Amino acid sequence: MAKGQCISVRDIEGGQCGDFWAVDADDFDHFLSPSHSWVHIGRIQPRVGDELVTNRREPILKILSDDVGWHDMLVPACDRHRYERYYGIAGHRNCHDNFLEAMSTREWGKREVPQPFNLFMNTFIEPDGTLHIRDPISKAGDMITMMAEMSLIVVVSACPMDLNPVGGQGITDLEILVGDSEEIILNR
Amino acid sequence: MAKGQCISVRDIEGGQCGDFWAVDADDFDHFLSPSHSWVHIGRIQPRVGDELVTNRREPILKILSDDVGWHDMLVPACDRHRYERYYGIAGHRNCHDNFLEAMSTREWGKREVPQPFNLFMNTFIEPDGTLHIRDPISKAGDMITMMAEMSLIVVVSACPMDLNPVGGQGITDLEILVGDSEEIILNR
Repeated sequence: MAKGQCISVRDIEGGQCGDFWAVDADDFDHFLSPSHSWVHIGRIQPRVGDELVTNRREPILKILSDDVGWHDMLVPACDRHRYERYYGIAGHRNCHDNFLEAMSTREWGKREVPQPFNLFMNTFIEPDGTLHIRDPISKAGDMITMMAEMSLIVVVSACPMDLNPVGGQGITDLEILVGDSEEIILNR
Repeated sequence: MAKGQCISVRDIEGGQCGDFWAVDADDFDHFLSPSHSWVHIGRIQPRVGDELVTNRREPILKILSDDVGWHDMLVPACDRHRYERYYGIAGHRNCHDNFLEAMSTREWGKREVPQPFNLFMNTFIEPDGTLHIRDPISKAGDMITMMAEMSLIVVVSACPMDLNPVGGQGITDLEILVGDSEEIILNR
């Protein structure tokens, strides 16, 4: 994505999460950081109009519209360790490796997979700190649209988790639309 | 620290946070990860008896005792960008650079500074996701003790933030004690 371009991610059938990453196209050590974004916006849940920031606290994406209004920025990408240690399953597709696969042609190298922005993922924290992961609340066709504030590489992995409520009632596709403005995307 | 050794961090005067990191002594790409620990323990606030895990979901530290029972795992280390962008101050000491300074003799290289475990830091999340950073609740002499579950390098930075409530009523020292058992530390 070029600076100023917009991206929409649409939950086609509803109830499907997607791990979303944005990396500075010119510097792979510089990327969207949920934890730095929390401090910037004063919330762990971003809202329309919020600017998300990088690990160097630079604006990277602005949220233009959002049909759901509830996403997750807490849960790290599932990886083979998650499936092996917690479910006893080897070889399961996972968002961590999906990111590395997507970036394998771009010399990501041995860098850590950054903390994702988990679109349509429904987590909730109780006042005592208890973390709940629940069925997504997104409905068929719901989407979120963001504008790039720098030149970006974006990776989205439709969450393949089928062993806990995070994925709702089944694994389905997400649609990704990129355009020069929000209007161009919405009028497609 | 060797595997099985214990570490206590004591808030000598009370009201002082400390950014705490633990890195696998044999593999610097492997370290304590707050976000993976949340999923492991089902809470964003660790309790006595909890095992914290690494970015590969391996047990790294177990919490043996804790006088406070409320710490933070959400807020990234303050860095020069935090002081420059949010407070207009250049050259302020910060936990991010304190970590890099402590690790500079150990070939940390260009790796990202991991998300810290912020001892004695008092954050609170409202049900709508609002993040509050408040005065620490730790009193003089309060401490937390953990046991290493692998060979570790630990870094602790007494938080030098003096521009918001996170640091309480002033910047004071933390005491770090390492011993072969919890009893050895407590009987010192």
